[in-house]
Amino acid sequence: MSNAESAAAILAEGILAGRPRAVARGISLVENDRPEASALLRLIFPRTGRANVVGLTGAPGAGKSSLTDKLAQVYVDRRQRVGIVAVDPSSPFSGGAILGDRIRMPKLATHPNVFIRSMATRGNLGGLARATTEAVLLLDAAGYDVVIVETVGVGQDEVDIVKTADVTVVVVVPGMGDDIQSIKAGIMEIGDVFVINKADRDGVERTQMELEALLELAARPDGWQPPIVRTIATATPPVGLEELAAAVASYFDFAERHPAMRAQRRRRVLGRRLLELIRDRIMQQVWERELRDGQLEAALERIESRELDPYTVADYIVQKALR
Amino acid sequence: MSNAESAAAILAEGILAGRPRAVARGISLVENDRPEASALLRLIFPRTGRANVVGLTGAPGAGKSSLTDKLAQVYVDRRQRVGIVAVDPSSPFSGGAILGDRIRMPKLATHPNVFIRSMATRGNLGGLARATTEAVLLLDAAGYDVVIVETVGVGQDEVDIVKTADVTVVVVVPGMGDDIQSIKAGIMEIGDVFVINKADRDGVERTQMELEALLELAARPDGWQPPIVRTIATATPPVGLEELAAAVASYFDFAERHPAMRAQRRRRVLGRRLLELIRDRIMQQVWERELRDGQLEAALERIESRELDPYTVADYIVQKALR
Repeated sequence: MSNAESAAAILAEGILAGRPRAVARGISLVENDRPEASALLRLIFPRTGRANVVGLTGAPGAGKSSLTDKLAQVYVDRRQRVGIVAVDPSSPFSGGAILGDRIRMPKLATHPNVFIRSMATRGNLGGLARATTEAVLLLDAAGYDVVIVETVGVGQDEVDIVKTADVTVVVVVPGMGDDIQSIKAGIMEIGDVFVINKADRDGVERTQMELEALLELAARPDGWQPPIVRTIATATPPVGLEELAAAVASYFDFAERHPAMRAQRRRRVLGRRLLELIRDRIMQQVWERELRDGQLEAALERIESRELDPYTVADYIVQKALR
Repeated sequence: MSNAESAAAILAEGILAGRPRAVARGISLVENDRPEASALLRLIFPRTGRANVVGLTGAPGAGKSSLTDKLAQVYVDRRQRVGIVAVDPSSPFSGGAILGDRIRMPKLATHPNVFIRSMATRGNLGGLARATTEAVLLLDAAGYDVVIVETVGVGQDEVDIVKTADVTVVVVVPGMGDDIQSIKAGIMEIGDVFVINKADRDGVERTQMELEALLELAARPDGWQPPIVRTIATATPPVGLEELAAAVASYFDFAERHPAMRAQRRRRVLGRRLLELIRDRIMQQVWERELRDGQLEAALERIESRELDPYTVADYIVQKALR
C-alpha cells in the first residue's frame, strides 16, 4: 500500500464514522486535487448514494445564504444531519463582495449535526464542479441526510454544479424588474422548486404571476409541476421555510414514484462525472508523455512562426498518444 | 479532397479576401463546431497573427457595449477595419436581460469596415472560449486591424476568454460601493488598461483613488503600469475615447519594446488553446472507441449499483485507450 493509500484509508475510516474533522480534511484533499483524493473517493464511494442533495441557486442578492441556513435549520429541528456546501465563485467582480457579506447563523455553524463548507474556484476549467461533486460524495458517505449545495446562478460552471443535485431550488425576489423575463428556458428546466424570497416586498404578486406563466409555457417532459413557495428567510421567525421543505419533499416523493426518471437523472450526472474523470486522467498522461520536457514549447514555437498550425499539431499528438 | 475540405477551401478564399459574408459563415461553422471548421482553421491559420486583439470586460451595467462601440468608432475614424465579438453568456439570471438591453450604434453596425458578431454559450464545457478564439482568428485572417472581444466579467469562462486578448481593458463605474473592493488579485492581473466609465457620476474620485491604491499593491512582473482612463461613452460627443485608444496603443508600444514578454503572453494563450484542442480530439476518439454503443451505459449501471466506482472505471478506460 502506498503512503497516499494508507493515509486515504485512515481518513476514509474517519469519514465513514461521520467525524467532521475527517470530512473537512477530505474536502481539502479534493479541493486541492491531491493524490490521496483519488484513493479516498474510491474507498468511500460504495457508501454513497443515500443523502438527499438539494441544489439552491439564484441571482446575486436573492438571499440564498439566509435561505440555505433557515432551510438547514428546518432539517436540524427534525433531527437530521445537514451538510452545506457554499460555492463561492471566483468572479473578480461580484463574487467576493456578495459572498463576503454572508452572515452565517452562528447557532447553525456550531451545531453538531451541521457541517458548513465554502468552496472557491481555483481557476482551472471545471475544477470547481469536480471538487463540489466530490465534497458532496464525502458528506454523503459521512452520513449527512441532506446536503445543500448553494451557488450563485451566474456562469456555466455554477449551473453545471446545481445540475448535479437531486432537486434544484431556484430563488427569485420580487421587484427585480426584467429579471423574471430573463429566467429563460435554461433555468426553467433546472428548477424543480421555485422560491420567491423577500416575499414581503412590493411586486410579489406580479413575480408570482410571471413565474406561473413561464412555468406553464415550459411544461416538463417528466410531468412534474414545480411548486412556487413564498419565503421571508430573514424574518423572526422565518416565513415559508416549512412550506419550502415540504415542496422539496414533495419532489422527492414524486421522484420515488418515478424510479426510472430518477435513475435517468442520476445516471446523467454520473455519466458526466465519469467523462470528466476520464478526460482529466488522459490529459495528465498525455502531458507527461508527449508534452513535458520542452516538447510543448517546441511545438508552440513552430506554431508561432506559422510553420505549423495548432490543428495539425493536435492531430499528430492525439495519434501518437492513442492506441 | 473531401466535401468538407473543398467547402472549407472556398470559404477560406472568401475570408482571406476579407468578405464579411464569408467571415460570418466561418464563425457560424466554428460556433456550431462543424466538421468543416477544422479544415477552415487549418487553411486560414498561416495568415493570422496580425490583428491587435483588445479584450474588454467589466461588471454587468458598466456600459461595456457602449464603450466597445465608441472605441470601435475611434478606430473606424482612423480608417481601420474593426471586428467586434460580443460574448453573450448564457447566464440564466443576468446574461439575457443585460445584453438584451444593448443598443448597438446603427451607424457602426452597417459600416463597411466594421464586423459585429454576438457569440452565445452552447452549454458545453469551454465551448464558448474555443469558439470565441476561433472567431477572432477568422477576423484576423480576414484583415481586420483591430478585433475587440467584449465580455461580461463574471464566471471563469468569461475571464478565460478575455485572457486570450493582446491587451485587456477592465471597465468599472463609480459608486458601485464594495465593487472596487472586490476587484481582487485576479482582475488586477489581467487588466492592462483600466477604464472608469460613467465618469460624470458621483464617487469618481474615490473610485480612482481606490483603483490607484490597488494597482500600487499589485505591481506587475513585466513592469507595465496600467493607466486609468475616465470615459463617458454615452455622452455626445463621447468623452475620453481618444484617451482610451491612446492608452491601449501605449500598451501595444510597450509590448513591442518587450518582444520576449509579448511572445511569452502569446505562447501562453496558444499553449492553452493547443491543450484544449488535444483534449477535445482525444475525448472524441475515446468516446467513439470505448464508450459508444452502450458501453458507457453498462459502466454507469455497475457504478450505480456500487459494484464499481467511477475512479476504477476511469482508470480502466484510460489504460485501454492510451498506447
